[in-house]
Amino acid sequence: MAKAPQNAISPTRADDYPEWYQQVIKAADLAEVSPVRGCMVIKPWGWSIWENMQSVLDGMFKETGHENAYFPLFIPMSYLEKEAEHVDGFAKECAVVTHHRLEPGPNGGLVPAGKLDEPLIVRPTSETIIGAMYAKWVQSYRDLPILINQWANVVRWELRTRMFLRTAEFLWQEGHTAHATAEEAIAETRQMLEVYADFAENYMAMPVIKGEKTSWERFPGASMTLSIEAMMQDRKALQAGTSHFLGQNFSKAQEIKFQSQEGTEEYAWTTSWGVSTRLVGGLIMTHSDDDGLICPPRLAPKHIVLLPIYRSDEERATVLAYVDQLNAELKRVQYHGAPIRVLVDDRDIRGGEKTWQHIKKGVPLRAEIGPRDVAGDSVFLARRDQSPKDKKGTPKAELVATITTLLDEIQANLYNRAKQLRDENSRTIDKLEDLVAYFTPKNSDRPEIHGGFAYCHCADDKAVEEELKKLKLTVRCIPIEGEDEPGQCIFTGQPTQRRAVIAKAY
Amino acid sequence: MAKAPQNAISPTRADDYPEWYQQVIKAADLAEVSPVRGCMVIKPWGWSIWENMQSVLDGMFKETGHENAYFPLFIPMSYLEKEAEHVDGFAKECAVVTHHRLEPGPNGGLVPAGKLDEPLIVRPTSETIIGAMYAKWVQSYRDLPILINQWANVVRWELRTRMFLRTAEFLWQEGHTAHATAEEAIAETRQMLEVYADFAENYMAMPVIKGEKTSWERFPGASMTLSIEAMMQDRKALQAGTSHFLGQNFSKAQEIKFQSQEGTEEYAWTTSWGVSTRLVGGLIMTHSDDDGLICPPRLAPKHIVLLPIYRSDEERATVLAYVDQLNAELKRVQYHGAPIRVLVDDRDIRGGEKTWQHIKKGVPLRAEIGPRDVAGDSVFLARRDQSPKDKKGTPKAELVATITTLLDEIQANLYNRAKQLRDENSRTIDKLEDLVAYFTPKNSDRPEIHGGFAYCHCADDKAVEEELKKLKLTVRCIPIEGEDEPGQCIFTGQPTQRRAVIAKAY
Ligand SMILES: [Zn+2]
Ligand SMILES: [Zn+2]
Repeated sequence: MAKAPQNAISPTRADDYPEWYQQVIKAADLAEVSPVRGCMVIKPWGWSIWENMQSVLDGMFKETGHENAYFPLFIPMSYLEKEAEHVDGFAKECAVVTHHRLEPGPNGGLVPAGKLDEPLIVRPTSETIIGAMYAKWVQSYRDLPILINQWANVVRWELRTRMFLRTAEFLWQEGHTAHATAEEAIAETRQMLEVYADFAENYMAMPVIKGEKTSWERFPGASMTLSIEAMMQDRKALQAGTSHFLGQNFSKAQEIKFQSQEGTEEYAWTTSWGVSTRLVGGLIMTHSDDDGLICPPRLAPKHIVLLPIYRSDEERATVLAYVDQLNAELKRVQYHGAPIRVLVDDRDIRGGEKTWQHIKKGVPLRAEIGPRDVAGDSVFLARRDQSPKDKKGTPKAELVATITTLLDEIQANLYNRAKQLRDENSRTIDKLEDLVAYFTPKNSDRPEIHGGFAYCHCADDKAVEEELKKLKLTVRCIPIEGEDEPGQCIFTGQPTQRRAVIAKAY
Repeated sequence: MAKAPQNAISPTRADDYPEWYQQVIKAADLAEVSPVRGCMVIKPWGWSIWENMQSVLDGMFKETGHENAYFPLFIPMSYLEKEAEHVDGFAKECAVVTHHRLEPGPNGGLVPAGKLDEPLIVRPTSETIIGAMYAKWVQSYRDLPILINQWANVVRWELRTRMFLRTAEFLWQEGHTAHATAEEAIAETRQMLEVYADFAENYMAMPVIKGEKTSWERFPGASMTLSIEAMMQDRKALQAGTSHFLGQNFSKAQEIKFQSQEGTEEYAWTTSWGVSTRLVGGLIMTHSDDDGLICPPRLAPKHIVLLPIYRSDEERATVLAYVDQLNAELKRVQYHGAPIRVLVDDRDIRGGEKTWQHIKKGVPLRAEIGPRDVAGDSVFLARRDQSPKDKKGTPKAELVATITTLLDEIQANLYNRAKQLRDENSRTIDKLEDLVAYFTPKNSDRPEIHGGFAYCHCADDKAVEEELKKLKLTVRCIPIEGEDEPGQCIFTGQPTQRRAVIAKAY
């Protein structure tokens, strides 16, 4: 399979991975920076991926007994002050509303007026405001559990932003549940991690490691934080979803109390869990190549694009009639419970340019259809997970009959490729010098893609956090799956029960 | 049909309509005030209605060629200053972000820090920020039209708030389109009004009048504002959706320019259109009665609730097995393209209390199922649009076979009742004294429900606006449908071509 002499995306991944990422977003028309510092505009193609993600996740949340609701965008400043660790974690950088009016100013412009008695914070996360409502709603054990999710925008004033991965405003879902017992809340925390892992692997085609965060990487105020961690193509880790067991920390700060079946007064046990538009960034970085986005079929805005090719009006009529027919047939095919999403691109632009647009946008299948294909009752078919030059004449009937199989093959192929990359770049390391070497590029002037996931013994200790910081490394998580394997901390020699995953991270 | 001696909602509509509205919301568990001034919490039952509304509308927008996207929550203050009328309309009351950090304050609490160079406004509507992006995206006539919708939260600092109808933060969709010609933009404006009217009438079962706003009721900055107007049960008007032709006003302020096919530089013609969570308030006020919410089947969170009734463990087993069977059969029935939404309520609370909860929540159909019903292979069925006492033994097979017909009957009945109320309380009025009399209650101490829609000749003139204000009346719109009927303004005697609808309004 000959490699195309030139790629659609410049620079390539190997040349400059961060810049490649920005260029893929641009080439696929997914999003754009906005005039508002740190905020992005999500364009229709990018939004459609997020919409598909939302739809699948929402179904999974409902399937596991959750309901949606909506809570205010603003949080009174005093609410943030209630939970000490929480305020440390979120007060540093947040959008503060201090006025509720604009008035004409001295220079002809506007000035803020109508100062609020108490400033309002644009929610960075909603534990405090939702907890305040739960405190009202919960009186008796009969009122528990509360299993609520919210789809919302949140704001964290990030200094260094990156589209989808870290933006001042982002979109997410935040689940917030309250339970009568610790066991039930922990089971909920674990269940939602499984939901996230299921979604990441089976819809995003992104293999993930499920694990627990060290104490210093926990959500501010949580007793336990679980996460799913994925390896991007630059071998850095992306935290793709988190599920927190909050113990009674928030319920005590917010007075979420209930009368137990035995008549005693108890604090509820709460959880929270979330994934965000960051997932779109993870999808891009997991699958895309030097020709642009590759979208896993289960989340693709369109599954197939039909590209009519003709030179005369006569050819046009013949080809378009054939394309319409194929479009109708494809739309009657069900792919995982919904019709195949077909795009017909009959815009009047050059064929090559048009084809490359859809390659860059990551449409899983492309079917070129000219007069000869019509004559042969076939299409000229290309898969986005194969080389752009790898096109194959395919009988129309075969395409209609096998398109769901084809899409599932692409989906599986993307997963397997990502899994292989991760496996090839994961290793167990038992000596600090080997760890340092593993994360040191050969070429220090223009560092090549290097490192990966290092499985090390690593104590949950402040001293370890400091050492890792110096190396610009992080403990991603202590994986949940697999057997215990006692060992000694690579930094401090302390005994540990399981290996942790160490990596550079987004 | 005997009236129930007592009603579930107190006060009744006749006693105190505004308070009745609040009590219906509480009894149906739709929403609740939050600790944040003017912001509400939308609870799962209320959210589910909104979710169903979103789903239908989103399909209609896509059907008419629109795509979704997402733009920033914040608008730089200088953007609001660009369009003079727009700033007058929205700068008065809005949430102003002035700081991006909280720091420990002198008294142990937090204080805003990190002052922004330019304040940010939490979007009250997004014409300015979206227009700024369109200015970048549009260069040539080939880039037009742009047909984008956004689902978002917006904030307008309302002084007097009312759940769903007027809240500081609310949820909505805002369509924003740009076109090469005025004709095309006007056609878009009209098309979206038709979409809204279709939705209101065929899904909300809420009859509406489609019309054009007078100049003084236009959206700030618009050249033409169209709206749909519905009559609530207190005979006041609710503006339920608006569609604005913005002319070139915004494109000039924001430099949305393009090169025409002829090579000249032109300003684009833009539109915007929106509906919001206010629709949920309209739905409540249109259909609910003195026993609580009545939800039109097309938007109901659940179509039918199954209520098992038993006294012994033995009865329990028999009844629940039968209920499970019925549940499975009903879920296989398709109602307008999706499975019937069934709720089985087997909570351990008294049967009467349980039944009344579902009456208050407005579930269209209730089926009580006890041992005798099981023996007779039937259910005891009640419709929410009939008296709570009107229950009817119905063979199970008949229920399964006819449930979609029943639901459509309820849907039609709700529409017809609302239409009848509106027709009975609409009249043409040609003398000012008759208009005043029509809107004057007989009992001034405790005003009874009075007035309605008055069809009057009414000039689009500042003097008329002033007169109407004194009477606490508004021109809702000049209806689009029907023939011209020249006449003379009831206030000024000026000649007019069509009657306008005058009413008190929310
Ligand atoms: Zn800062
Ligand atoms: Zn104010």
